[in-house]
Amino acid sequence: MLPAPRLIVKALDRDVPLPSGKEAFVAALHRTLGRCKRPIALHEPEFAGNEWVYLKDCLDSTFVSSIGKYVDQFEAMLVAYTGARHAVAVVNGTAALQIAVRLAGVKPGDEVLVPALSFVATANAVAHCGAFPHFIDSSDATLGLDPRALSDYLARIAEVSSAGLRNVQTGRRIAAIIPMHTFGHPVELDALQDVAGRFDLPVVEDAAESLGSFYQGRHTGTFGTLGVLSFNGNKIVTTGGGGAILTDDAELARHAKHLTTTAKRPDRRDFFHDEIAWNYRMPNLNAALGCAQLERLTDMLGRKRLVAERYRESFASVPGVAFIAEPSNSRSNYWLNAVRLATPDSVARDALLSTANDAGYQCRPPWTLLHKLPMYVDSPRSSLPVAEALEASLINLPSTAALARQPA
Amino acid sequence: MLPAPRLIVKALDRDVPLPSGKEAFVAALHRTLGRCKRPIALHEPEFAGNEWVYLKDCLDSTFVSSIGKYVDQFEAMLVAYTGARHAVAVVNGTAALQIAVRLAGVKPGDEVLVPALSFVATANAVAHCGAFPHFIDSSDATLGLDPRALSDYLARIAEVSSAGLRNVQTGRRIAAIIPMHTFGHPVELDALQDVAGRFDLPVVEDAAESLGSFYQGRHTGTFGTLGVLSFNGNKIVTTGGGGAILTDDAELARHAKHLTTTAKRPDRRDFFHDEIAWNYRMPNLNAALGCAQLERLTDMLGRKRLVAERYRESFASVPGVAFIAEPSNSRSNYWLNAVRLATPDSVARDALLSTANDAGYQCRPPWTLLHKLPMYVDSPRSSLPVAEALEASLINLPSTAALARQPA
Repeated sequence: MLPAPRLIVKALDRDVPLPSGKEAFVAALHRTLGRCKRPIALHEPEFAGNEWVYLKDCLDSTFVSSIGKYVDQFEAMLVAYTGARHAVAVVNGTAALQIAVRLAGVKPGDEVLVPALSFVATANAVAHCGAFPHFIDSSDATLGLDPRALSDYLARIAEVSSAGLRNVQTGRRIAAIIPMHTFGHPVELDALQDVAGRFDLPVVEDAAESLGSFYQGRHTGTFGTLGVLSFNGNKIVTTGGGGAILTDDAELARHAKHLTTTAKRPDRRDFFHDEIAWNYRMPNLNAALGCAQLERLTDMLGRKRLVAERYRESFASVPGVAFIAEPSNSRSNYWLNAVRLATPDSVARDALLSTANDAGYQCRPPWTLLHKLPMYVDSPRSSLPVAEALEASLINLPSTAALARQPA
Repeated sequence: MLPAPRLIVKALDRDVPLPSGKEAFVAALHRTLGRCKRPIALHEPEFAGNEWVYLKDCLDSTFVSSIGKYVDQFEAMLVAYTGARHAVAVVNGTAALQIAVRLAGVKPGDEVLVPALSFVATANAVAHCGAFPHFIDSSDATLGLDPRALSDYLARIAEVSSAGLRNVQTGRRIAAIIPMHTFGHPVELDALQDVAGRFDLPVVEDAAESLGSFYQGRHTGTFGTLGVLSFNGNKIVTTGGGGAILTDDAELARHAKHLTTTAKRPDRRDFFHDEIAWNYRMPNLNAALGCAQLERLTDMLGRKRLVAERYRESFASVPGVAFIAEPSNSRSNYWLNAVRLATPDSVARDALLSTANDAGYQCRPPWTLLHKLPMYVDSPRSSLPVAEALEASLINLPSTAALARQPA
């Protein structure tokens, strides 16, 4: 569940015509989702499989905490589904990203390239490593990091030194790139990997929103040195709270497990911990829920595609509003459906949001661009024209798989 | 569940007499717990109340994640039980301690006084704030920080400066004290508060092990500026993984909630976060389990006291071994029962541990003293004679409340 604004739902009074743009917008929601009898949430979890069975089994076993079969099983299922060689289940996506950034070699005082258009966790995970987020512009085609803009920008502001890539403006080392697959839509991973290779930067994929999204047939989160997933309550699959670190590197996977489980040496009987570490393990109880959820992922993805297809059709006739379709070369999970205004205008966007929410459809604006938040206003950044335009024009739409049932 | 050594259980062969000390030790375990038919764990959770009812209700509601009634209810139950004015439920005890240390005013580069005899999380939480643990000796009477030794030590190595208490040996500010209530036994809180007051240091109580333990009738974790609890699977009450921050200060409680929930401004509809923060909230699913567990806390405490009383009687006749009873002025939860050897001797201790574990009773040594772990070997510390002696002489015994049933 999102920590969403409380909706004040009013019955849509058909005797009071809405301004034409708003009316067409809400009509498209009607066509897609049916008339609201009660508020339709942006995204809700769905428990229609073995969730009860596995939770009860977990409780009956008494293994609800740091030991138990479900954590191993959940990790194995993630490996099987994503194609990553290793998966390490942890307590949430932010924790996963913090550990992944650290394992990518980021040190305190480094800078890490992140999209300005992202949830705050992408930048916070960098800060939790003692490093500085450095904000980069987005692509119109994917809503995520723009590899060409990034390449041009790095050519201007960075130089290769003996200590690695150096930001000539701040004097700090640039140590990694974190692309984020916005609303589930993959970034141009081929081009991004190419830029990363040319500047010798590791990629840590923030795939928190993109479980079930593939780029050229390969799962997001498996292209970088490490990738991370989230299973928060608002995600396509939930463990209550949870996340995972993906990697093909056996040593990084071992280290990720070690760092997230207090670095206790398994080869010793006593309490011997060999580095400063975290208690970031996913409890077995939460993993039990995740196993049941993953069993139904393919089914949920199919229904989410149906919802997306309906939105695409419904919004085709709405003037000044375009549905965000999956990028080329990609198959998106359509985690959160979105439309954008042809003309960026945050006032018009907010008017549409108010109308839709008043009609019972929970819609939301994108995140405030990260460089506008008080703690990151002084962070280094490129020019951000596309991210600024997207911020003023994107609207997320209700996207739960269950909405695929025929509208009333 | 503890990440415990795998036990290799052998049937106790009565035809092969044990060396007399070991035999008397195992005989005392027999008298207390009965003959082992299968291994008896150090500590196991017990789900005999409304655990399944609440978990099922939580799942049926679909509110398993960051929103839901059980988090509020769990916090209210903690407030009612402990007498703290505010409780903030978080993802585990380490996270709780990290945020509490930060809210106590500890800054990067500061030193924080912690017991050398503690679980590694006590020091890690300090390190996660960018600060340095400074290790202090224990008291024979409580197993926790010795207020008198601490006072004498600070008088020697610290001086009051305009920036606060300064360690004259390292030049760093000493910013807080973290007492830990070992195995559930309260430290001498009156004397410790007195030392803290004289040196103008805030106290953050690590009450991870002491839910249900009282000092002079007042619950542990409510004496310091902040206190923290843990609900890991090995604790008296479990949420799978979980912790809580306790405080009487409304502003600290508000800030603790804010910092553990991504610092999103509740007064704004958009995504506006106003400081670097964490995703440390306790999922509603885990809180549901916690509510059911707390309902049975008083019952479990009663049975744990019975187990402790039996141990006391059983070990009274074992030469060279003394049962650890609750300190004066205190009522302990007897989370983990313990005995100590009259003569500190880690070789003898390990021999007893092997014998007991081979007989099916899961016993364990105390933690390796924190200044002996690789990441903390260079940390500042006082002399640690009592902690060293305790490390070489303590043995923890199986302590689950269910062991109070009459032995077979």
